Amino acid sequence: MPVSDFTLDHRLQGDTAFVKDLGLCRVLLMDDARFPWLILVPRIEGAVEWFALSPAEQAQTLSEVSASAAMLKRVTGADKINIGALGNVVPQLHIHVVARRVGDAAWPGPVWGVAGRTLHDRKELANLATALAQELPD
Amino acid sequence: MPVSDFTLDHRLQGDTAFVKDLGLCRVLLMDDARFPWLILVPRIEGAVEWFALSPAEQAQTLSEVSASAAMLKRVTGADKINIGALGNVVPQLHIHVVARRVGDAAWPGPVWGVAGRTLHDRKELANLATALAQELPD
Repeated sequence: MPVSDFTLDHRLQGDTAFVKDLGLCRVLLMDDARFPWLILVPRIEGAVEWFALSPAEQAQTLSEVSASAAMLKRVTGADKINIGALGNVVPQLHIHVVARRVGDAAWPGPVWGVAGRTLHDRKELANLATALAQELPD
Repeated sequence: MPVSDFTLDHRLQGDTAFVKDLGLCRVLLMDDARFPWLILVPRIEGAVEWFALSPAEQAQTLSEVSASAAMLKRVTGADKINIGALGNVVPQLHIHVVARRVGDAAWPGPVWGVAGRTLHDRKELANLATALAQELPD
C-alpha cells in the first residue's frame, strides 16, 4: 500500500517511543509504565476519522491493529485488550491498543485522561520498544 | 454471513434500546441523553476480543462500525466520532460509536465511566432508535 508524505503529530511524538513501521501504520509505544500501550498511526497525511479512509486503508489499519493487539495480549498475558480511536485532543488519526489487567491503575475504567502517568526510565523504554518490534510481523 | 445463536448481555440490554440488526452486528442505542451513542455487538456467541474473530468477521464488524460512525457523524454533525472496544466491565464483544461535540459533558475525555448519565424519556428513546435505524443501510 503506497504511503504518502506523513508528519507525526508532535504530541504523539513527544509521548511515545517508535516501535516499528508496519505496511500502513506507524506503531508507537506510549511512555506510561502503568500500562503496556501501543498507538498505531496510519501514515496518511490529514487522516482524522477511521471511517473516512478508503475501504482498503480501513481494512489494512484493522489488520495491523489486530496483529498488534494479539501480540500485546500474548506477550503481556493481559486480561483484556482495549482498542480506542478517540482523537478529541490530537485529531491525527491514531488507534490505541492497551493491555489491561484487573486491578491496574485505571481498572475497570478507560486509560485515557487518567492522571498519574508514570514515565519509563529512558533506556527501559527503548528496550521495551525494541522487544515489542521484534514480536510484530514484518 | 451466518449468525449463530446469540444472547445479548443483560447489562447491554438494560442500558440500551434496539436499533437494527445489520449483517453481523446488532446495533443498540445507549440510553444516555448526553451523547448520541451507538453500540455494535457482533452476533457471535462467546466473542470477547475483536482480534480473535475470523478475518472475515473482523472485516464485517469494521464495515458495520464504519457505516454506523459515518451515519452518526452525518445526522448529528458531531465534531468527532469516538470508537472504542473496551469490555472491562461487560466482556461480550461490543464496540462503542459515540458522537462527540466540543464542550459536551465529558469533553475532551472519554465517555466511559463518566458519572451523570441522563436517561431519555422512554418515548423519545424509542423514536430516536427508530429514526437512526432508518438512516442505517439494510
